[in-house]
Amino acid sequence: MTSSTLFTRQQSDSGNTTTCATNNGINPSSIKPALYTEPYRPQIHFSPSTGFMNDPNGLVKSGDTWHMYFQYNPNATVAGFQHWGHATSKDLYHWQNHLYAIAPDSDDQGIFSGSAVLDVNNTSGFFNDSVPADSRFVAIYTLNTPTAQNQNIAYSTDGQNYTKYSGNPVISLNTTQFRDPKVFWDEQKSRWVMAVSHSQDYQIGFYASTNLREWNEVSRFGPSGILGYQYECPDLLQIPISGGDKDGQKAWVLVLSINPGAPLGGSFIQAFIGDWDGTNFKPWDGSTQIVDFGKDFYAAQTFYNAPNDQAILIGWVGNWQYANAVPTSPWRSSMTVPRQMTVRYIDMNPMHKGYQVTMEPYGLESLQKQQTNENTTSSNGNQTVSLDGNGAFEILANLSYPSTNYSVNPRAEFLIHTPNQGEYLKVGILYGDPTTVYVDRRLAGKEWSDSNPFFTDRFSQQFHPITTDNSTKQIVRVHMIVDRMQSELFVQDGVASASILHFWDNEAKPSSLSVGLGDDQIKLDSLQVNAINSTWPTCP
Amino acid sequence: MTSSTLFTRQQSDSGNTTTCATNNGINPSSIKPALYTEPYRPQIHFSPSTGFMNDPNGLVKSGDTWHMYFQYNPNATVAGFQHWGHATSKDLYHWQNHLYAIAPDSDDQGIFSGSAVLDVNNTSGFFNDSVPADSRFVAIYTLNTPTAQNQNIAYSTDGQNYTKYSGNPVISLNTTQFRDPKVFWDEQKSRWVMAVSHSQDYQIGFYASTNLREWNEVSRFGPSGILGYQYECPDLLQIPISGGDKDGQKAWVLVLSINPGAPLGGSFIQAFIGDWDGTNFKPWDGSTQIVDFGKDFYAAQTFYNAPNDQAILIGWVGNWQYANAVPTSPWRSSMTVPRQMTVRYIDMNPMHKGYQVTMEPYGLESLQKQQTNENTTSSNGNQTVSLDGNGAFEILANLSYPSTNYSVNPRAEFLIHTPNQGEYLKVGILYGDPTTVYVDRRLAGKEWSDSNPFFTDRFSQQFHPITTDNSTKQIVRVHMIVDRMQSELFVQDGVASASILHFWDNEAKPSSLSVGLGDDQIKLDSLQVNAINSTWPTCP
Repeated sequence: MTSSTLFTRQQSDSGNTTTCATNNGINPSSIKPALYTEPYRPQIHFSPSTGFMNDPNGLVKSGDTWHMYFQYNPNATVAGFQHWGHATSKDLYHWQNHLYAIAPDSDDQGIFSGSAVLDVNNTSGFFNDSVPADSRFVAIYTLNTPTAQNQNIAYSTDGQNYTKYSGNPVISLNTTQFRDPKVFWDEQKSRWVMAVSHSQDYQIGFYASTNLREWNEVSRFGPSGILGYQYECPDLLQIPISGGDKDGQKAWVLVLSINPGAPLGGSFIQAFIGDWDGTNFKPWDGSTQIVDFGKDFYAAQTFYNAPNDQAILIGWVGNWQYANAVPTSPWRSSMTVPRQMTVRYIDMNPMHKGYQVTMEPYGLESLQKQQTNENTTSSNGNQTVSLDGNGAFEILANLSYPSTNYSVNPRAEFLIHTPNQGEYLKVGILYGDPTTVYVDRRLAGKEWSDSNPFFTDRFSQQFHPITTDNSTKQIVRVHMIVDRMQSELFVQDGVASASILHFWDNEAKPSSLSVGLGDDQIKLDSLQVNAINSTWPTCP
Repeated sequence: MTSSTLFTRQQSDSGNTTTCATNNGINPSSIKPALYTEPYRPQIHFSPSTGFMNDPNGLVKSGDTWHMYFQYNPNATVAGFQHWGHATSKDLYHWQNHLYAIAPDSDDQGIFSGSAVLDVNNTSGFFNDSVPADSRFVAIYTLNTPTAQNQNIAYSTDGQNYTKYSGNPVISLNTTQFRDPKVFWDEQKSRWVMAVSHSQDYQIGFYASTNLREWNEVSRFGPSGILGYQYECPDLLQIPISGGDKDGQKAWVLVLSINPGAPLGGSFIQAFIGDWDGTNFKPWDGSTQIVDFGKDFYAAQTFYNAPNDQAILIGWVGNWQYANAVPTSPWRSSMTVPRQMTVRYIDMNPMHKGYQVTMEPYGLESLQKQQTNENTTSSNGNQTVSLDGNGAFEILANLSYPSTNYSVNPRAEFLIHTPNQGEYLKVGILYGDPTTVYVDRRLAGKEWSDSNPFFTDRFSQQFHPITTDNSTKQIVRVHMIVDRMQSELFVQDGVASASILHFWDNEAKPSSLSVGLGDDQIKLDSLQVNAINSTWPTCP
């Protein structure tokens, strides 16, 4: 990726002192007066003020502050001239924009994806004793140049102002396909471990270090799973297990992004569950899991130092098949809500239980909401709920079906409408063996969709419904977040999840929800719709 | 699967003596006068005369005759009451329908999927010496009952009239999830080997036998790849290798169907490349391959005793998410053309070569064709070709692009139109790093598509273009077969292939092809369009 103009830091406004939404580094003269009020602008998801964003980078919690860096082009709304943009939050929803934190030194460089850690024991030697332990930031990133991708590091005492290490690169293999280092402190061998992608070899390299400066390769993993064109953005992490013999333990999971080469086309993420012994990652079996059945979920990464060792992940909402072309301005792309990961022991079918990576929204309950519908329980029939508010809301629905006789295959459908005639996003539950959740964005903004041959419209995933104790009532729980031009769907505690973009015609906003029950034996046991206040204060 | 009525053999017409299209077993009184003339009816692909078809079964070549059996419900156009339908061909395109070959004994049974072999050495003891070696058919199938799925066998001296073995079942494990036996003669240990699915355990069992009657489990494989809900229809076979260190050798490939649980929703096939030592299947690495990027390719099986040890595969063109609902009558479903499989050593990206399962049409050159367009070479601009003929044709196009500078990402598009206004199937090539082939059926029959939330519309796959020796000209070869309501696409010698259904509005037929070149540097080096004569003679 290249950029036509060299952007200099001093042109930018770091703007941390106001409470209105500030920018991530673009020339202030080009900023619209009311950022975050644009019709398509997500109201509770992170998006950069202006410019182009892709992968989340360097996710780290320091004290009570969540830091998110991200691949960022401050100069244009297409990928290129990659910086590490920067934003912070106390709750992962209200974000404060900052000036980009790490910038390339020349316009033929890119600060590509990577991670950040807190070097609390000053293993790197970068910090004075006066620096509090949780202010000892070290960022590990790929420096991309026309001739190589090398792993570099930089350090900071505030998470904003980084000093590039004078001894960079810390790993150099003389290859152009070696990127996206994710580093964690491995208790087992009391050392740092980096997972990094040997992208076009379809391998994840694991490197170890005691000081973040000197690294030795200890093992490689792959080729494995769906290969596609290349591997990107590995994340080796521990995820709490719920259920089964391993209940309460943690599983090691390798999360891996592939682009292009997704079965749905373009970008996707797969995950492998296994063991990490400090040196080697060994999957439990030969299986691979696609953890989000939508088409707009990529390059996800978990936070370093999340509380209680939880696995909190943020993904990029995009697909490289159309990310540079989506009809938003003056920015492109957004992130998912933070997702809490659990490895659940579930019924994969009537005869087999297995461990599956699941994701649910994290911290959403802290947001300010207005309950929109009056009738929250025992709503048994078809109904329509007006969606007041600012275009961001959540739907919580519990469905039940009394029978296992699926001669009918009854369905329930949730349609999110805009004021445009015939425009809606459809989410359906088709009871059966197994039950299927499906999403149809075919009519959720035809103008842009019609123009793009890669904007696949229909997605689905099967799952085994949860059956109540007497085995007569099968319950499906739907949790959906709709935020202007993006939606996230979570079914059955995140056993199925989907991240979906939809660009309504004429930049419309969601205005009503209709629920249709296709069979009188399906019950809508509860329906709650909450308008969620925007988390983006705007400058007047 | 159950059926409401018991169908008896004597009601049916075996009808082998006429040259017109005969039926596969339904009550003759319900047959339309002109089968295979219906507007949606594929003209060069196999479809049953009437009733519902799914998986190909028992594919075997005996003498100069290809036998195809298939999962078949003669009573209705939805799945249920499964028989083994039967058809034979000398060329895999001109098919003679026969009465179903194996029928259930009661209406709560189903003759589920399986395979057939020629027991040339009479290992089973079923055959007199007078029976020619290549007339010693043994079918191995799953007998499905409400309480179990067991593996059964039946034998025949003509491929049509089968005697069920009195000692059935040959394998019984007291489970309802154990099916789809595929048997081959394993030279390594001079014994029969069966691959069979322990469906909901996500394992393929390998069983060995010296006589086809007594079987012992020798190993299991899995869980591996994408698990979905259950495994079905395994096929362990040898495929010739082209290129690389192993050029001229053969690879063992395990082909495996999953339903539901496809990344695109519903049904799909994945393949593992590895070694088979007579006892264990060991994949070369942890990777899995999705061999067809469309949504309508399932339960594929290769022929036993194909000439020259070629791997000739036929797949079912369908997806269980909508197979029981597609708008054809008096039949539902069709097969792919026969596809010759090769494991090719290809550029998977600029840095890595690897082995990939590829498929190309087999024997298509033997069909009678009329060349439709006059200009077969050096057609450099946009053009439209009228598609005369009967709705079945092939497109052979060679594109080239002179540069590797993809700042433009030029595309070429092939639109197959019907007379309906604005109705077309789109196939595109987007040059880039990598190049992408895409299919868009969004406008290829809106009425039926609009009614089905699972009829995903857009598909794509990346591939590395073939570059000529001087590295300046990048060639993409497109081979497409369009046959009324189904299309098959093969790009770069089958490195990418897709099976796609499209139900045109008002049962229209394809009537013209337009080619659009999005950049004046893209050249259409050649374009050949052939109308292909129907292979289905009809009764007057």
